Amino acid sequence: MNQENSASYPKYKQIIDFMKEKIARGEWPIGSKIPSQRKLASMFDVNRSTVITALEELTADGLIEGKMGKGTIVINNTWTLLATTPPDWNVHVKSGMHRPSQAMVQDINESESNSNLIQLSKGELSPDIFPKDKMKYAMEKVAKNMEVLGYEEPKGYFPLRKELSAYMKTIKIESSPDSILIVSGALQALQLISIGLLQKNSSVLLEKPSYLYSLHVFQSAGMKLKGLSMDEEGIKVTAIKRADPQEGQAILYTNPCFHNPTGTLMSQKRRYDLLKECEEHQLPIIEDDLYRELWLNKQPPSPLKALDKNGHVLYVSSLSKTLSPGLRIGWIVGPEPVIERLADIKMQTDYGSSSLSQRVAAEWFENGLYQLHMETVRTELRTRRKVMLNALETYAEDIATWTNPEGGFFIWVHIQPSISMKSLYSRALKRGILLNSGSIYAQETGSYLRLSYAYASLPDIDRSIKILAELIRELQV
Amino acid sequence: MNQENSASYPKYKQIIDFMKEKIARGEWPIGSKIPSQRKLASMFDVNRSTVITALEELTADGLIEGKMGKGTIVINNTWTLLATTPPDWNVHVKSGMHRPSQAMVQDINESESNSNLIQLSKGELSPDIFPKDKMKYAMEKVAKNMEVLGYEEPKGYFPLRKELSAYMKTIKIESSPDSILIVSGALQALQLISIGLLQKNSSVLLEKPSYLYSLHVFQSAGMKLKGLSMDEEGIKVTAIKRADPQEGQAILYTNPCFHNPTGTLMSQKRRYDLLKECEEHQLPIIEDDLYRELWLNKQPPSPLKALDKNGHVLYVSSLSKTLSPGLRIGWIVGPEPVIERLADIKMQTDYGSSSLSQRVAAEWFENGLYQLHMETVRTELRTRRKVMLNALETYAEDIATWTNPEGGFFIWVHIQPSISMKSLYSRALKRGILLNSGSIYAQETGSYLRLSYAYASLPDIDRSIKILAELIRELQV
Repeated sequence: MNQENSASYPKYKQIIDFMKEKIARGEWPIGSKIPSQRKLASMFDVNRSTVITALEELTADGLIEGKMGKGTIVINNTWTLLATTPPDWNVHVKSGMHRPSQAMVQDINESESNSNLIQLSKGELSPDIFPKDKMKYAMEKVAKNMEVLGYEEPKGYFPLRKELSAYMKTIKIESSPDSILIVSGALQALQLISIGLLQKNSSVLLEKPSYLYSLHVFQSAGMKLKGLSMDEEGIKVTAIKRADPQEGQAILYTNPCFHNPTGTLMSQKRRYDLLKECEEHQLPIIEDDLYRELWLNKQPPSPLKALDKNGHVLYVSSLSKTLSPGLRIGWIVGPEPVIERLADIKMQTDYGSSSLSQRVAAEWFENGLYQLHMETVRTELRTRRKVMLNALETYAEDIATWTNPEGGFFIWVHIQPSISMKSLYSRALKRGILLNSGSIYAQETGSYLRLSYAYASLPDIDRSIKILAELIRELQV
Repeated sequence: MNQENSASYPKYKQIIDFMKEKIARGEWPIGSKIPSQRKLASMFDVNRSTVITALEELTADGLIEGKMGKGTIVINNTWTLLATTPPDWNVHVKSGMHRPSQAMVQDINESESNSNLIQLSKGELSPDIFPKDKMKYAMEKVAKNMEVLGYEEPKGYFPLRKELSAYMKTIKIESSPDSILIVSGALQALQLISIGLLQKNSSVLLEKPSYLYSLHVFQSAGMKLKGLSMDEEGIKVTAIKRADPQEGQAILYTNPCFHNPTGTLMSQKRRYDLLKECEEHQLPIIEDDLYRELWLNKQPPSPLKALDKNGHVLYVSSLSKTLSPGLRIGWIVGPEPVIERLADIKMQTDYGSSSLSQRVAAEWFENGLYQLHMETVRTELRTRRKVMLNALETYAEDIATWTNPEGGFFIWVHIQPSISMKSLYSRALKRGILLNSGSIYAQETGSYLRLSYAYASLPDIDRSIKILAELIRELQV
């Protein structure tokens, strides 16, 4: 405790400074209870009236608040005073600012870093599949030929764009390196598109359910999401006519390969019909094709972008699902002027993606490593899918129905008995299992679960499905 | 040319599709002139009225436009139709969306990748100083101990935050790893702060001149910049009182070490006074301390953050100026709840920075490589500063005055004769020299140049200053 010249530095000021410091350093985080008046009085060797004076000033500053029956709580600090005034926050959302992620999503994000849990929620390859040796090889090659790592061109490291241009050809997309923009993952792609190309109050038509409902990337930029119903071939074309947005711009966002969360693979015919319909309605398309290389039965139909003759489609992909999210490398393919505009915005946002990551990514393509790796991944995922499907048949046949996905990470499970999914979520968590409830993707899919077979170990997959079935039975009335 | 069944595929449709494809693929970029009616007629073997029908439809679609005396110009494609309607664009700016960078800045960005130019504009270390061997060593160490590269925790790779926490101690800032957020460079730090903490119509008080005037990071988010006048010790404290923003929030942004563009080093006393004044006005501070380690005479005074007992200061730094912009690694230090909020927004923006870059960056700190490297950099920069100052004395003593910076990259040069700086810029460019005019940083500093001694080679520095002086004399009336 600071005891120096108490004449010029009155006791109540000392208390204030002490508490401000505790609050500012996060030692007393927001929401925490501060020591009682009695305790503070004894700490500073003053009587309670002095403590009360200090508390009154801190209350006036908006840092603490006395709550009936709860004591005095830290409610703010200088920066959070800026950050947390709920009414203004609503203004932010409306005016295109970011809002904090949905509580459950935030909760899942946090729990996902808990390695003791069985992560049936995780849309990510298991660490067991991570290609350490190949990655080491790629890094060592970059290290060996180490060049100066400066800022890259606005569209990204040219040799990587060249490799991607060649790779795009293998999936029937003709695109020169100049029509490719390197981004830090697909989420950033959507972010750039939403702030760079779309107007506020635009409508984004998209599959319903969709993982985008939980992401807020378009909503934060002031756009309205309009769900389109699906069947087993993908978005229903008739749904587009019905959605027909009267006011403002509209675009269509789709996830045609192994759709997140349902796993649906859009058929070839549907791709043609959808593109035609969108062209007629002058409805530009964002094709999010992250899961394409994760096909498990046979190669999926060509991308919409490959059918697109009129620059109607912006194509988005990344290495996060197939190789490593840690690289933070994705790309956008589109008409050159659009790519240039997005590149300009990217420069204004973060001056480009990591040169290191871009070089390592280029190495993966240059050596054909990527395609070799994908074969391994597909083999692994086939086994995992099999184990999860077997477990579902063994333990849950009478209480659930599910999809048999042709690729990707997810089985979309419909829980038959009408139970509280919230209770299922929290009971599962107590038993060490993290779930993604369907309510994250659409209100209507509250009785679904998105189960990932990509992350957990084989024994954990079997064990957790067994526990899950038990919990569902328990919750059944 | 496609000649198939002309019955169901009329000629004018063929022309339309042909042209749409050219436009969409970027072969006919926006602004380009399409072939004449005569030429199109002969290409498709039709008479001109058919061509006109096609052109009319494309005009109605908004893709092309006939311009008096200029022929017919490509003005749009599907996506750019969304992207480029100037009146709406203004709405975007007002509502916090991104606007394209100022033409001159864009121009400079492009010219900066032209390696034939002498880059007096470039605020970046010369490739000659890039520590290839040390970087190779760091990468090989990461490769050797290769771990799974997944998504990191929201605040970033823990070992890097631990290293940074220790590093921060060396500059007198006490911060636990939990109060540090890893970002992809300082620009992203400002971006996150502006969308995550500030309200629209907030005021950002900042040095005038400032490089932020050209960045638009705050302006795009709907904030007003208010310049504060400076003297040789930094921001004038009295300027804050005068700026006193009546409506809305305000924050202060400052660049206290080797300020960009003037090179000013804020004195110790000014730091105390500024912080005190800001605390009194409840004015939170963003301290952008990118250039700190580039001191050339003696270590600069402690950061404002080190003096800050009340969580008043958000501290921003990065490796871009000192080690390599290609890593895209920066960090924010602040009160924990604020860091958590910013981490949440970062996750919503790009799911975190490259794991690879974060690991390599951690390696630089862990081995003390970073401090060793900084010694080399300082030695190099001292020589470069000397050469540029000598050249100015030799060639420009009678036509300019300039600063003698104590660190950083920049000499701030005041051109004495009243000449057209635009002409100087373009004549210099013709002679192979890229300049940053003071008008980028404030209207009032139009007769200044920010000259960087960090990038060009020693002979080029001498030669270009000589040419510059010649050009100024030529332009003198």
